[in-house]
Amino acid sequence: LSSSDTGKKTTALSLNSIINLDHGDPTMFEPYWRNLGEKCKLVISGSDVMSYFSDPGNICWFLEPKLANAIRVLHRLVGNAVAEDRHILVGTGSTQLFQAALFALSTPDAPEPISVVSTAPYYSSFKEEVEFLRSGLYKWQGDAKTFHKEGPYIEVVTSPSNPDGTIRRAVVNREGGKLIHDLAYYWPQYTPITGAADHDVILFTFSKCTGHAGSRIGWAIVKDEQVARRMTKFMELSSIGVSKESQLRAAKILEVLNAGLQNGSGSENFFEYGRHIMAKRWFELRYIVKSNSKIFGLPEYPVEFCNFSKGTTIAHPAFAWLESKQDEDIEKLLRAHKMLCRTGTRFGSEQKYVRISMLSRDEVFDEFLERLAAIKGGTENQ
Amino acid sequence: LSSSDTGKKTTALSLNSIINLDHGDPTMFEPYWRNLGEKCKLVISGSDVMSYFSDPGNICWFLEPKLANAIRVLHRLVGNAVAEDRHILVGTGSTQLFQAALFALSTPDAPEPISVVSTAPYYSSFKEEVEFLRSGLYKWQGDAKTFHKEGPYIEVVTSPSNPDGTIRRAVVNREGGKLIHDLAYYWPQYTPITGAADHDVILFTFSKCTGHAGSRIGWAIVKDEQVARRMTKFMELSSIGVSKESQLRAAKILEVLNAGLQNGSGSENFFEYGRHIMAKRWFELRYIVKSNSKIFGLPEYPVEFCNFSKGTTIAHPAFAWLESKQDEDIEKLLRAHKMLCRTGTRFGSEQKYVRISMLSRDEVFDEFLERLAAIKGGTENQ
Repeated sequence: LSSSDTGKKTTALSLNSIINLDHGDPTMFEPYWRNLGEKCKLVISGSDVMSYFSDPGNICWFLEPKLANAIRVLHRLVGNAVAEDRHILVGTGSTQLFQAALFALSTPDAPEPISVVSTAPYYSSFKEEVEFLRSGLYKWQGDAKTFHKEGPYIEVVTSPSNPDGTIRRAVVNREGGKLIHDLAYYWPQYTPITGAADHDVILFTFSKCTGHAGSRIGWAIVKDEQVARRMTKFMELSSIGVSKESQLRAAKILEVLNAGLQNGSGSENFFEYGRHIMAKRWFELRYIVKSNSKIFGLPEYPVEFCNFSKGTTIAHPAFAWLESKQDEDIEKLLRAHKMLCRTGTRFGSEQKYVRISMLSRDEVFDEFLERLAAIKGGTENQ
Repeated sequence: LSSSDTGKKTTALSLNSIINLDHGDPTMFEPYWRNLGEKCKLVISGSDVMSYFSDPGNICWFLEPKLANAIRVLHRLVGNAVAEDRHILVGTGSTQLFQAALFALSTPDAPEPISVVSTAPYYSSFKEEVEFLRSGLYKWQGDAKTFHKEGPYIEVVTSPSNPDGTIRRAVVNREGGKLIHDLAYYWPQYTPITGAADHDVILFTFSKCTGHAGSRIGWAIVKDEQVARRMTKFMELSSIGVSKESQLRAAKILEVLNAGLQNGSGSENFFEYGRHIMAKRWFELRYIVKSNSKIFGLPEYPVEFCNFSKGTTIAHPAFAWLESKQDEDIEKLLRAHKMLCRTGTRFGSEQKYVRISMLSRDEVFDEFLERLAAIKGGTENQ
């Protein structure tokens, strides 16, 4: 059966159009911010923020103080990270900050590049981001679970995990280890908030928090002053700071979000809104996958108490880590049905897994569900 | 004599405050944009530009089409570069694009890193930007004039030169050479426009064109499709694209600028405005330097026909490359008089030279002139 045989087209997408669920483009959150109307409107005059400098006395001299403040308030309200008495750094997405952290945690005069590892399945871009410039400072060594080399290393802990949504801890735990905690998805719409993270280097991104991926704003929470200085140096050398317009926009949006949380009203609580949409999407996806349980499988997540929601909740990750129960190349199977997703091999895993974005616009998500349901029976019946 | 003895304080700066002319922070242009008022105001709603994607069909898929269009119109009106039928790429400042070009012009499987050279005095950050990640792809080899190594190389041609404002051409001119033309200062307020540049890879930056350094917007004009694709790949891996807010702001400002040029009215011609301020500042600086000609010297620039201004003009560079006629460490001398500037040694030159920003706010520039004039007599009289 091809998707065109389901006869239930209700979206504006044409039958033959390819739907792209490869990226985690968080356009799902657009209606929420559209509904807030004037409140979120940012006005910038022609002579605003022309200087390179935002806060010359701060280590991160290009960080807009308004944004730093909104970030600290946000973490206090959500309870997902300790941000008081820590250095806050802004980056062009957490992507730039990840590379800044590699630079800051490596040693220029070391006899060999420091090893960089992460538990598989790991974020698909880590390997390429570590390798593309053939740096002599750091070297990608793959899966943390099978890493046994002596000496210093950097372990990247992505929790909840991208791609599979599981909660992660450092696994190497040896002398000389340095940790980067990538907590991009540690927000209440995706996972229960079980405590305030308090690590040496934590990365967050505006993209996954509120859905504003186009702004390219990430932030790091850093304990050590020298690490904060070296990360800042990286951002100076790679881009002489970070867009002020995006920083002002992020500050504005986060201020509105924070005010909504403080007012305590349900409709103004962005994360409760997000959690409800994510729960609905996961319910629909699980329903289809369960109806096709000989073909497809999904990870299960534990029920936990969420300090933010004040109740037991369950993870609804930003990506579905879909498994082929028949050990097929599932990326190829979905592609044959005009769904572009990212193969498990890109994440240091197998081709029987695929990562699917759960954050697309409604019409794309609905079309995805229809096309997935249409695979009923599997490829052997085609 | 110290500056506090001149007895002519007319600015809001305190006598003891240090003035920073180390960076080329172009805050001088703020009043121009402030005077345009509402025209330049950018309004962004909460749900605008949330996606990673701006133009999915374009090689540079994160480039806002409005910005690409405004850039092409600008170059047509100014006549400083051929931008039609070329790939336009956007970067987080031209700093990111410079590094993208190094990546794109190097060969991953080459037996050794490609040499990167530039005629001294060269932009002080080139060396550090090439070296800081210890890339195996490219290697800084210093002054192009003394470069004699066989094999492929990248020559960076900054024209007008930062720091000294001279017009530059490639000097190595050998087989296997690749060129990056950094034309950040090739705008009518700084130098006569003598023709439309038409090179393989050209870099420009919004910072120096209009003075909006805080936006971190640069652009590249690229002939070869594969180079454009590789540069885009670099921007994907280093920051997953470029701030949309800054791109919209740059588009807005450039559209207003372009309209002013098309209307042909003097007061609306940003570049004529800029040229007049720069001319005035250079006149004042040269007056002081000539009165102290035993101590200080400045480069002279040729009178040339400017295609944009339709008349003979002379360069008024964004930086003054001040020389100590007594072979002193001039950075140290100015620092003793509470002026922070960048020493010539940072540019691959000598400590008898210093680079001084000519783009500061009026009160800072006026104070700088007073403090410089106060050095009359030189250090031997102190």
